[in-house]
Amino acid sequence: MSSSTFFRSMLTTIADRGRALLRRHGPMVEDLLEDAAKLMPSAKGPARRDLPSLCDTLLTGRGEASGVALAGQILERWAELDAAGQRAFLLDLAYRFGPDPIKLDKAIDAYRAAPGAGTALALHNAAEARRQELFRRLNLAPGGTEAVVRMREALFRVMAETQGVEKAGLEAVDADLNHLLASWFNRGFLVLRHIDWTTPANILEKIIQYEAVHTIRDWDDLRRRLAPTDRRCFAFFHPQLLDDPLIFVEVALAPDIPASIDALLAEGRAPIAAADATTAVFYSISNCQEGLRGVSFGNFLIKQVVEDLRGELPNLRTFVTLSPVPSFAGWLAKERAKEASAVLAPADKAILAALDHSGWHLDPGTAATVSPVLLQAAAHYFLKAKGRGNKPVDPVARFHLGNGARLERLNFLGDLSPKGLAQAHGLMVNYLYKLDDIETNHERYADRGEVVAAAAVRRHLRADAGVDEAKPPTKPKAGDKTAEKTADGTAKRAPRPRADPQPPA
Amino acid sequence: MSSSTFFRSMLTTIADRGRALLRRHGPMVEDLLEDAAKLMPSAKGPARRDLPSLCDTLLTGRGEASGVALAGQILERWAELDAAGQRAFLLDLAYRFGPDPIKLDKAIDAYRAAPGAGTALALHNAAEARRQELFRRLNLAPGGTEAVVRMREALFRVMAETQGVEKAGLEAVDADLNHLLASWFNRGFLVLRHIDWTTPANILEKIIQYEAVHTIRDWDDLRRRLAPTDRRCFAFFHPQLLDDPLIFVEVALAPDIPASIDALLAEGRAPIAAADATTAVFYSISNCQEGLRGVSFGNFLIKQVVEDLRGELPNLRTFVTLSPVPSFAGWLAKERAKEASAVLAPADKAILAALDHSGWHLDPGTAATVSPVLLQAAAHYFLKAKGRGNKPVDPVARFHLGNGARLERLNFLGDLSPKGLAQAHGLMVNYLYKLDDIETNHERYADRGEVVAAAAVRRHLRADAGVDEAKPPTKPKAGDKTAEKTADGTAKRAPRPRADPQPPA
Amino acid sequence: MSSSTFFRSMLTTIADRGRALLRRHGPMVEDLLEDAAKLMPSAKGPARRDLPSLCDTLLTGRGEASGVALAGQILERWAELDAAGQRAFLLDLAYRFGPDPIKLDKAIDAYRAAPGAGTALALHNAAEARRQELFRRLNLAPGGTEAVVRMREALFRVMAETQGVEKAGLEAVDADLNHLLASWFNRGFLVLRHIDWTTPANILEKIIQYEAVHTIRDWDDLRRRLAPTDRRCFAFFHPQLLDDPLIFVEVALAPDIPASIDALLAEGRAPIAAADATTAVFYSISNCQEGLRGVSFGNFLIKQVVEDLRGELPNLRTFVTLSPVPSFAGWLAKERAKEASAVLAPADKAILAALDHSGWHLDPGTAATVSPVLLQAAAHYFLKAKGRGNKPVDPVARFHLGNGARLERLNFLGDLSPKGLAQAHGLMVNYLYKLDDIETNHERYADRGEVVAAAAVRRHLRADAGVDEAKPPTKPKAGDKTAEKTADGTAKRAPRPRADPQPPA
Amino acid sequence: MSSSTFFRSMLTTIADRGRALLRRHGPMVEDLLEDAAKLMPSAKGPARRDLPSLCDTLLTGRGEASGVALAGQILERWAELDAAGQRAFLLDLAYRFGPDPIKLDKAIDAYRAAPGAGTALALHNAAEARRQELFRRLNLAPGGTEAVVRMREALFRVMAETQGVEKAGLEAVDADLNHLLASWFNRGFLVLRHIDWTTPANILEKIIQYEAVHTIRDWDDLRRRLAPTDRRCFAFFHPQLLDDPLIFVEVALAPDIPASIDALLAEGRAPIAAADATTAVFYSISNCQEGLRGVSFGNFLIKQVVEDLRGELPNLRTFVTLSPVPSFAGWLAKERAKEASAVLAPADKAILAALDHSGWHLDPGTAATVSPVLLQAAAHYFLKAKGRGNKPVDPVARFHLGNGARLERLNFLGDLSPKGLAQAHGLMVNYLYKLDDIETNHERYADRGEVVAAAAVRRHLRADAGVDEAKPPTKPKAGDKTAEKTADGTAKRAPRPRADPQPPA
Repeated sequence: MSSSTFFRSMLTTIADRGRALLRRHGPMVEDLLEDAAKLMPSAKGPARRDLPSLCDTLLTGRGEASGVALAGQILERWAELDAAGQRAFLLDLAYRFGPDPIKLDKAIDAYRAAPGAGTALALHNAAEARRQELFRRLNLAPGGTEAVVRMREALFRVMAETQGVEKAGLEAVDADLNHLLASWFNRGFLVLRHIDWTTPANILEKIIQYEAVHTIRDWDDLRRRLAPTDRRCFAFFHPQLLDDPLIFVEVALAPDIPASIDALLAEGRAPIAAADATTAVFYSISNCQEGLRGVSFGNFLIKQVVEDLRGELPNLRTFVTLSPVPSFAGWLAKERAKEASAVLAPADKAILAALDHSGWHLDPGTAATVSPVLLQAAAHYFLKAKGRGNKPVDPVARFHLGNGARLERLNFLGDLSPKGLAQAHGLMVNYLYKLDDIETNHERYADRGEVVAAAAVRRHLRADAGVDEAKPPTKPKAGDKTAEKTADGTAKRAPRPRADPQPPA
Repeated sequence: MSSSTFFRSMLTTIADRGRALLRRHGPMVEDLLEDAAKLMPSAKGPARRDLPSLCDTLLTGRGEASGVALAGQILERWAELDAAGQRAFLLDLAYRFGPDPIKLDKAIDAYRAAPGAGTALALHNAAEARRQELFRRLNLAPGGTEAVVRMREALFRVMAETQGVEKAGLEAVDADLNHLLASWFNRGFLVLRHIDWTTPANILEKIIQYEAVHTIRDWDDLRRRLAPTDRRCFAFFHPQLLDDPLIFVEVALAPDIPASIDALLAEGRAPIAAADATTAVFYSISNCQEGLRGVSFGNFLIKQVVEDLRGELPNLRTFVTLSPVPSFAGWLAKERAKEASAVLAPADKAILAALDHSGWHLDPGTAATVSPVLLQAAAHYFLKAKGRGNKPVDPVARFHLGNGARLERLNFLGDLSPKGLAQAHGLMVNYLYKLDDIETNHERYADRGEVVAAAAVRRHLRADAGVDEAKPPTKPKAGDKTAEKTADGTAKRAPRPRADPQPPA
Repeated sequence: MSSSTFFRSMLTTIADRGRALLRRHGPMVEDLLEDAAKLMPSAKGPARRDLPSLCDTLLTGRGEASGVALAGQILERWAELDAAGQRAFLLDLAYRFGPDPIKLDKAIDAYRAAPGAGTALALHNAAEARRQELFRRLNLAPGGTEAVVRMREALFRVMAETQGVEKAGLEAVDADLNHLLASWFNRGFLVLRHIDWTTPANILEKIIQYEAVHTIRDWDDLRRRLAPTDRRCFAFFHPQLLDDPLIFVEVALAPDIPASIDALLAEGRAPIAAADATTAVFYSISNCQEGLRGVSFGNFLIKQVVEDLRGELPNLRTFVTLSPVPSFAGWLAKERAKEASAVLAPADKAILAALDHSGWHLDPGTAATVSPVLLQAAAHYFLKAKGRGNKPVDPVARFHLGNGARLERLNFLGDLSPKGLAQAHGLMVNYLYKLDDIETNHERYADRGEVVAAAAVRRHLRADAGVDEAKPPTKPKAGDKTAEKTADGTAKRAPRPRADPQPPA
Repeated sequence: MSSSTFFRSMLTTIADRGRALLRRHGPMVEDLLEDAAKLMPSAKGPARRDLPSLCDTLLTGRGEASGVALAGQILERWAELDAAGQRAFLLDLAYRFGPDPIKLDKAIDAYRAAPGAGTALALHNAAEARRQELFRRLNLAPGGTEAVVRMREALFRVMAETQGVEKAGLEAVDADLNHLLASWFNRGFLVLRHIDWTTPANILEKIIQYEAVHTIRDWDDLRRRLAPTDRRCFAFFHPQLLDDPLIFVEVALAPDIPASIDALLAEGRAPIAAADATTAVFYSISNCQEGLRGVSFGNFLIKQVVEDLRGELPNLRTFVTLSPVPSFAGWLAKERAKEASAVLAPADKAILAALDHSGWHLDPGTAATVSPVLLQAAAHYFLKAKGRGNKPVDPVARFHLGNGARLERLNFLGDLSPKGLAQAHGLMVNYLYKLDDIETNHERYADRGEVVAAAAVRRHLRADAGVDEAKPPTKPKAGDKTAEKTADGTAKRAPRPRADPQPPA
């Protein structure tokens, strides 16, 4: 027990120091800077050395005598730079802190002369850009990890405004940062934490700010997502990124698979007891750190949360998302604009013209007419339309299918928010995480590009479309009752008003 | 405040899980293994796949769907291996998980055809041994970081028994591990913690076990080093190496620079109030993790502790070690054996013959005769004798001088323990850490190979040896009172019984 | 260090259990109740025993075998009572759980027969109402302490609606509760905690709710009071009243003594560095627990906070409040209504007629005319008007003067909020906490009823009022620079627009 | 989650301050004392006021202005007293700080004139010794709670050396302290904590020191009781008694009910997995605070631990003690010395003469002869012999039977330590805590004085003794399988070597 509390308090040192400084600053910080200056005599004097020169010193210092102070000084200088200064320094990183070409040439020659473990290692070292070691040494300074993450955010801003050969140089810098941050933010170093209404306000503030799927309007809205007995939230943190989550997921505990985000988040709703829930619904996943783009956390987070929730609530049987369909409306607009769409018949297009009138969904008659056509198009969008690399067009689908989830259900008018109507005509979908099938699903998707989907989804495809002819529907394994019930139950159930109504046979 | 307590508790997740498993095991672990098996279907069935094949799968898996489970499985298999099995696997790492030679050749060609940031990066990637990525992926599993550290310990054992080309292969594996661990155990990720009598017993147990300089005999002995008001202990921890220190230093708060470890650790001594101390004495520094050999912590630890102590106790003016001299007796034996020693005159040798009689130091007359000769030889040992790379022979001296410390004083009969007498005829020394001089000292040592030493030390050299003639004694800066007082004070002080008595002029 | 972290985590047990229950309930709580029922067989069966009968059992149970379960059961029953049921039970406490009159008579006789330590003790025990022990035993149940506090809140509600003999009975119950809670909530058991922007949201929510002086409008408003570098908040907690503060104080760090709450809380203001502040301003103190009415925390809180802030920020020299004057407007209205007021001349009344027009303070001319008259009246209100027990009329003044503070300054138009204008025509005052004088001030106030005030306050009294003639103004001690500066500086300073403007000489 | 970590850290304030002071003392403490002196001017000057006079001031002070400082000062003075000074002060408490006799007389008159809730309350207040309020006010000072506990320890020492009327006075002081401490250390304020090998060393040190049943020889011995997977230890703490347990219990997890402490604590034994255990054995319960004598914790502790262990380890079915029999040898000696013992026939006495030879138990033949006679006597000792208040002679039996446990089994030669042989000829017993029966058992014991015992125990009584004839053996309820198995199983099982062997029928 208390060894873990010992361990807990281990990490406060840095935090407390940082905070004390921020709170009191004035004299104390000056003292520190003075100390740093003593350790770093070359920084004294009237002429300030330029940043690349300081970086050279940090890299070439034989001992670590002044490494911490020097790294801190560099980060301070970096923090003072304006946009132009940042750009200049990043280009310096690209051109002046790559590998040494002469050493590299020699290493190549040595390897070619005698290929082997030793020469290959030497070649690897010689080919490493010097900035890699520079970034590692910047991490000596307090706050170094975060500073490197923020530096990559700046790099993205500069890259967006850069073209041609300079861009290629910056891309090499980015590749090095990506490599380094993937190592530092390895899943083994991350810590999963519950976020709830007893979490410190400065962290909750970040949750409000970072929520990227369904906007959290204010603290009352946040409270409704954290405090009720049937709500959960989990986040990954890194020991060095104090008070700042990397990614978080919001979960609703429910009696069955929900079809509408509006119902899920309704203000007046009555929470259920957690122990009564059979279904955990992941309804929002948000990445928080732009500077960690490309370092993937989501897959680990979902699987860890599934494991934790199963431990806490043994009654949970179903783990499912309620997900947006961000590119559907754009894709559909293109199909509607095509003279001859393979998806939409002229009659379909006529029906879908209703979508151009705002408020169409409020008229039950219109909604009933639009529903079968829209769902048929959506089934096509998910199952047959392909984007880059022969992957589905939808980015959220790519994420969940890549994780081994199955596309479980299409939900007509599941999200009536302006954003939901604009990006997907209100469509939402569920992806099912079924532990026994995750590996197989993942392989089917990754190896064969197959979109694993429940029969209920495939059924929305036109009979004559012949999509499923090619391969027989996945036969549920014996005992796979969840799958049976979910998929078939959906199809057989009496039509639900706003979610996934079935066309007459 | 409580955000840092929030943060503290962040890291308990892993710890608590691990402990719960260890405590309850039985059914629960089986469930987990079953789950893992589901995620990793290839592991099912009667034929167990071999370890390298599992590693290949971990490396080539396109998604991360089963990475955590697979990494866990590999570590489990590794843990079951006997010595022969470990050796075989490590050789596999050396030969089957190096860089791909064909890809490497192509990358070389591409670079030579068009040298640039992009091709250099590609070359760097191609030259990276595949095991690097393997180690990073093993870190996905809970306990992965520690497992990799322990794997390197095994590697050292195997390397010690291996010769020739196989050894070279293992060395490449070691180089990769060293590179990786240096990045993971970057000072920016370490946490400094006070160790005291309120520290959990399982951690204190490790302190007893890891102490490498002055053996801690039992818990009472430990208590005497931690509980008194004038004692401190600090350790670096890593968030992933639970309950296991990386390095620690024991500190005594004292009214002046001590000359004898026996007095410092005497059982009956009366502690002083911390606020009355002017001197912090680092009397024992122990590295704890053999698997992190080559990743340096000591320099950062000492400097951090100096900073912390200065903050806590503003009266502290002097930061100094009381250090052993591990190679002195060996070196002296060689000099005594030489027909014509440049250090020892025949008369000196005759006097030093007393050292061959155990208990020589108990006779005051003998000690008084031996003292000047031994100290003169010691001054030579530190200031003039050179080992590999033109560095001092003494490893402790290399460490502290490399950190920017100054050799401050030689203490005759400072350590009367069997070990102290055996390795250094009782000699101990002080190294002084003076913040204002650290950088200059470091440069003098690193650039010019100069052993920075107080005048009091140099004075032990024979006048006719002419050592100091070459360069004038370092002139103390104005206001450098500590240095003045310490160096001169020592010389002028009335002879202290067991430490550093001065010969008559 | 870690022993205190050990200690910290000690208290989580109860908290975690309670929370786990609240989160999961359903089956688990039923199990617990079942267990409790097993321990308490008399509670089984169709006929529920009445509450007083359960209380009798709890009191007479010879062992503690079922005390915890029985206490829990009683609290559960109490929680189910409606208003009438609560009233009935509280009257039962008054009449059926007083002292046993027969035993009391015997004890009196025994004492009168042989007065002594033993018979007095027996008499004391016999005179103790049985409900005292009942309350102590209710505390065996988890949540018992809070339940008793809430029970007293209910008692206050019932008392407010009760008259005559029944009221006297309830007052005896209240006296017992007051006695018990004063012992349980003794300052020795309270814990002072910083409240800041990193405090858990469920506690901050309570701060918003309990703030009683200057309403906190929303979370942004709260953030402005907690997050800036020059703001602090401290609260007392009790280990058994989880997540619920007892009292808290909000503090502003400032360069001098502020005259206006509006300026202090202005949205756009620029915070100063804490280390630059010379003055800590207590601008809001709120008691949180109605059920602890009469148990005083404020005096301890202020003194503890002064001590803590002095430790953290050595530059702080002045500790002062910025306080409302809640009864001033009511008192002034009475004086204005008197035919012959000893305070207000007819000309004064004419000038003060302006107060009857809302918005009077917005016209600079009117404000300038009103100012001297209002301040003169205020000086009278504080220094000469007396309420019950010959104490000042103003309750806030009684609190701070009783603590040993000095009335330091009157601030004209310091609070322009509707509440501030309604209760005090915008007047605010500062009370000064000067460590060296606290004891003397307290004695002057407590023994002699003297209102200790700065010369600047007394000067507002009319010259002909002769108030100060009787006793010479307190002579500042040599070196008492703070007092000099504050009092005189205020008087000599150029007129500040809204605070304490001086009449022309 | 983090709200509880917030809460945890609440209590560090006092702890950290105290520790900081102890570590640094010197200047800081002097400052504090100076501050205290300022707050308490009467303490200045050459003539120190006497302790009772300071106590009077603390009691009569109208405000709390200087309460904290004054209480601290009194405790400091108390700490400086020698034995004679302590005695004098405690007698002062007895005689000068009782109730005011004049006020008490008036209150009696008032009550007799008009008996009622109000006058009874006033009488109760008047009869309260003034020292009660004094103790409550001493608790204002940091460390006050502990100081009062320690003061009662001193009181016990003084009482032991005091006779007559002075003793009566001191007993009144003790009664007041007992009353107060029972309220402060109410179970509702206690916190249960696991003690294990990760507990801070300063707390573990106390466990070694306080262990009162089976001595813990050293840290290795302690480790064997805390670290293995099948061992647990739990302690109650009070938030104000930092780092100091009140009571603790050591638990072994076992496959069945153990008969021998030597086997249970054997050095070489192989631990079992906790999840495999069916039986939790409470083998040592130690009260830690002499100053809390009479405030009972043991019953609450055992029941809380049963509840916790059932939650953690659902396989646990049996909760049982392995207990010493501290008065058995003394009682048996008296029976053996009686000319005509109702328990021992002359033949029995002859056999028991073997007990007078040390080492008798090492001879299997002797042991086999002694066993039935000793066990028969033991059964008599527990079931028929009565001490004060018609309760069992054995204090451990009174404790467990009073808690509702059942005497389950007699274990011949269960404790071969010198202490075990000396006090009970090696006899140990098990008491069974069976949740469903606790209440009934408690009532049978408390109301009817019945010693609830398993049939296996009663069977040791001589058939002709007729003990059980009077009342039929308790019939186990249907489904009471544990009882069946334990009691009967014991009897039918093959003779176990050292525990409870059965005589041939």
